Amino acid sequence: MDEIDAMLAANADWVTRFPGSKPVRPARHVAVVACMDSRMPLFPLLGLEVGDAHVIRNAGGVVTDDTLRSLTISQHLLGTRAVVLVHHTDCGMQKTDDAGLADVVEAATGHRPPWQARTFTDVDEDVRESLRLLRATPYLLSHDVRGTVYDVDTGRLREVS
Amino acid sequence: MDEIDAMLAANADWVTRFPGSKPVRPARHVAVVACMDSRMPLFPLLGLEVGDAHVIRNAGGVVTDDTLRSLTISQHLLGTRAVVLVHHTDCGMQKTDDAGLADVVEAATGHRPPWQARTFTDVDEDVRESLRLLRATPYLLSHDVRGTVYDVDTGRLREVS
Repeated sequence: MDEIDAMLAANADWVTRFPGSKPVRPARHVAVVACMDSRMPLFPLLGLEVGDAHVIRNAGGVVTDDTLRSLTISQHLLGTRAVVLVHHTDCGMQKTDDAGLADVVEAATGHRPPWQARTFTDVDEDVRESLRLLRATPYLLSHDVRGTVYDVDTGRLREVS
Repeated sequence: MDEIDAMLAANADWVTRFPGSKPVRPARHVAVVACMDSRMPLFPLLGLEVGDAHVIRNAGGVVTDDTLRSLTISQHLLGTRAVVLVHHTDCGMQKTDDAGLADVVEAATGHRPPWQARTFTDVDEDVRESLRLLRATPYLLSHDVRGTVYDVDTGRLREVS
């Protein structure tokens, strides 16, 4: 079976366990900004229930214009007032650099991407850079932001100060 | 207890249930692009296990430059070859329009955001627009993309064609 057909079929099982309707505004007034990595099931690893928190994810869990767009909507329209960042060990973004990725994409497709890959080397420093970017943005209502690193080999979350 | 302290404490429970290390490359070679909405726990609702699929999420689940950056990294560096979009009913992005959000942000902060909010009215049409944007991008290795709408009142996922 095609993988996406398998996901659509698996959804029938979720429907039998569905916990019921919840309001659109997150109950715990928090937005999570995390890497897209396949090894981070954010609901159980943060103890979230359906309806608790917004979840924003991209390659690296970095702060981009799109992250700021999403957080602005989260705070101004939907009432969240805190942000937690979840980066992680063994990230794919540590395995190349911006020029290296652009070279790979151009060689394979004939097109060089116009945007930066946002690779990094030190995960703690990348969390701190994201915290700085969030605290500097003028569009948010709250600058209550904290950063963490998830260990993909133990499941443990560690705060970065 | 502060909500983020509560999430860090809840992580200790996850560590006791942690299923073990998995490779950085997603086992099922799929990337999910979904809305940040708090009512969508994507792992159980798509039948995903830890390590199966990348998960990219933003306000609306729309295709932005950051979505393309993340998918390009997902395909070129980490081996995914299919994309599934998950939009949903009762979306916060259907409750305003781009100028309305910019007015709200400017009134509250004194700063007008330079980016579009990417609001929409018809969720099926917004899925189709995202499918068109993904099929038109020259940077991906695969244009195997499918789109769905999640019903937040029943838990059911419906494909949009």
